[in-house]
Amino acid sequence: MAKLSARVDKIHTSPIRRVAALLDEARERSDIISFGGGAPSLPPPKRLLDEFSRLLNENPLRSCGYTGTKGIPQLRGAVAEDVKKYGKVDFDPHTEIIVTTGATESIYSSLMSIIDPGDEVIVTDPTYLGYRETIELAQGRPRWIPVHVANGYQPGGEELKETVSKKTKAMILLSPDNPTGRIINESFIRTLVDLAVDHDFWIISDDIYKHIIYEGEHQWISRFPEAKERTITVCSFSKEAGIPGLRMGYTLASKQIIDSIEKMQQYSTLAPESIAQFALVKFLNENMKVQYIRDSVASYISKRDLMDKMIQRYLPLAKTVKPAGAFYYFVDMRDYLTKTNRTEEEFAEQLLSTERVAVIPGRFFGDNGIGHVRMTFVTETEERIKLGIEKIHQFLNA
Amino acid sequence: MAKLSARVDKIHTSPIRRVAALLDEARERSDIISFGGGAPSLPPPKRLLDEFSRLLNENPLRSCGYTGTKGIPQLRGAVAEDVKKYGKVDFDPHTEIIVTTGATESIYSSLMSIIDPGDEVIVTDPTYLGYRETIELAQGRPRWIPVHVANGYQPGGEELKETVSKKTKAMILLSPDNPTGRIINESFIRTLVDLAVDHDFWIISDDIYKHIIYEGEHQWISRFPEAKERTITVCSFSKEAGIPGLRMGYTLASKQIIDSIEKMQQYSTLAPESIAQFALVKFLNENMKVQYIRDSVASYISKRDLMDKMIQRYLPLAKTVKPAGAFYYFVDMRDYLTKTNRTEEEFAEQLLSTERVAVIPGRFFGDNGIGHVRMTFVTETEERIKLGIEKIHQFLNA
Repeated sequence: MAKLSARVDKIHTSPIRRVAALLDEARERSDIISFGGGAPSLPPPKRLLDEFSRLLNENPLRSCGYTGTKGIPQLRGAVAEDVKKYGKVDFDPHTEIIVTTGATESIYSSLMSIIDPGDEVIVTDPTYLGYRETIELAQGRPRWIPVHVANGYQPGGEELKETVSKKTKAMILLSPDNPTGRIINESFIRTLVDLAVDHDFWIISDDIYKHIIYEGEHQWISRFPEAKERTITVCSFSKEAGIPGLRMGYTLASKQIIDSIEKMQQYSTLAPESIAQFALVKFLNENMKVQYIRDSVASYISKRDLMDKMIQRYLPLAKTVKPAGAFYYFVDMRDYLTKTNRTEEEFAEQLLSTERVAVIPGRFFGDNGIGHVRMTFVTETEERIKLGIEKIHQFLNA
Repeated sequence: MAKLSARVDKIHTSPIRRVAALLDEARERSDIISFGGGAPSLPPPKRLLDEFSRLLNENPLRSCGYTGTKGIPQLRGAVAEDVKKYGKVDFDPHTEIIVTTGATESIYSSLMSIIDPGDEVIVTDPTYLGYRETIELAQGRPRWIPVHVANGYQPGGEELKETVSKKTKAMILLSPDNPTGRIINESFIRTLVDLAVDHDFWIISDDIYKHIIYEGEHQWISRFPEAKERTITVCSFSKEAGIPGLRMGYTLASKQIIDSIEKMQQYSTLAPESIAQFALVKFLNENMKVQYIRDSVASYISKRDLMDKMIQRYLPLAKTVKPAGAFYYFVDMRDYLTKTNRTEEEFAEQLLSTERVAVIPGRFFGDNGIGHVRMTFVTETEERIKLGIEKIHQFLNA
């Protein structure tokens, strides 16, 4: 039989597939307490849903019809206003904003637009598990900067300096971070921006959790004047409007980058989904967003604090940092694992099969995550969060 | 400033961008008679729209939530039934079907899954204008088989034999074809399948117009027993359900290919859009499709016949073939163009600026399309089709 391409053959061991299989199982079975997923747990605002129905009834040919590859001008205009309001930074809706099929496509198209074979892309270890393979699909090489619980998972400026080379083409920075919940320090950004200018590389700022913040505030890298022209900001409506399934993201960047992403997307997906684009114009213009974010953060912070209390009480040997943003606790479990001579992967598998509690092994997010687990606190009810941590406690003491 | 990647830089002259710009203009201005686009002109069935609203109201968290990368099992199951019903061919919904972000992503992921640098992909000239750049993005090389109006735009088996080489990795065949409306001959398929087996290459069968047929019937290449394991069948709901903006496609192929496409899509788009997936289960299971296709074909055939009559009457020197399927007339205008010493591109530009009639220059679909124009007959009303052809006549005789 004719062969597959080397590029895809290479990614056959990707952990994202195993996580997906695990989450599929959790979705089907309500007896599983899932600390595994990463989706918002509040449905989208009722008024947004009503807008969908209105659009479908009033002009289905238009609302279900092709839009331009960059997305409809009205949505790009509304995004420009929103970004100015929250980020205090200007992007031209005609040339510097493109709507994408989720943040995933934004990251993919951005990397395909800037990476030539052998180029290096710096990422923290651990961080979002999709970057590695996406960099490799674009024929780049990931370079890692380790982060540790002892430093609150902040990457070090010195480590960054040592990692930058002649081949550095970009750094991807996720803040708030998945899996660690860390909001990046301003001092690290200053170091990063200086290095990016000196060594002429791009910064990809993955801002998908920019509104899911419990303490501190989001860092808009593009607000640093020297950074703006070389920063590609990746955003998503998944968390901000509660519609992850509708695959709505957007990218803010220079005209040169946006043009390039548009070219890629003409051949990879043609155009973003239409109805959600029309509906999101109203979501932004009529400011449904403020209330939705307020409700989401209020619900999540209460769950976070509960999980914190439960971890302190039931897992006293675990080391972690209270997450300042995003959906996750990233927990160093090595003191437990060493005792029982298990990897965190074995621990996660056994925990799922015996206690029906799903957590994600830390190595999936990078080698430096070995011995850790990621636990989402936004999916389950407070009662089930309690129960889940108690079950982990029982399991470890069995 | 840091550079862009060579892969995207290379595609800066793509005609799809110019077509897109032209169509954007036509969408905004109702004074333009558009023979340019390629979208269905009937809105989706009312019952399908109602199902969207029901899903949004009853369980928004689920209907707007992430699905698996392959799409929901219920939709894959319904697609398997549908394909069995129309194509008399079996695909396992668990392993041999994947839902994609439109046929565009299906073509892109398929090529990324099978093409290594330097591999050759055979396509007819002219054909759909997105193949060339997608092949090049996957680092393959397109090889062309010319088709001509004199043979009803059927490719020749001999030309195919001469084009197959040691580097041939695939042929992409679109039937019914865009821009020519040709349904492929069974004898060509037999030659193709024999060559694919002998030289061990893949067949990508782009079946997006499989139900938009006026005479003859669709050829399911996967129904040829030797072909099935090496054929990747690309399908879309855009034309079959009237929802091009919702970006819903699917691919039928062997488990090996589906697994590979799934891997690609985990990093390019993560998952297909959710609400449309849930709604399309009902669309297929409750057989809304039969009526929608019947209504569409009835409307389109009447417009096709009108355009045929008008071309015969007002453009007697034009050469064309009455399209057996799809949305387009592909018209050899060289007898007119030679007289006035214009390229078809200049003709299209001048026609748009002076008469406000949009047609697409044939060279955008391949070098062999030079001197031709593509005219869509499904978009405009019958009255405006008449008016448009009369305006072309006036323009040519001015």
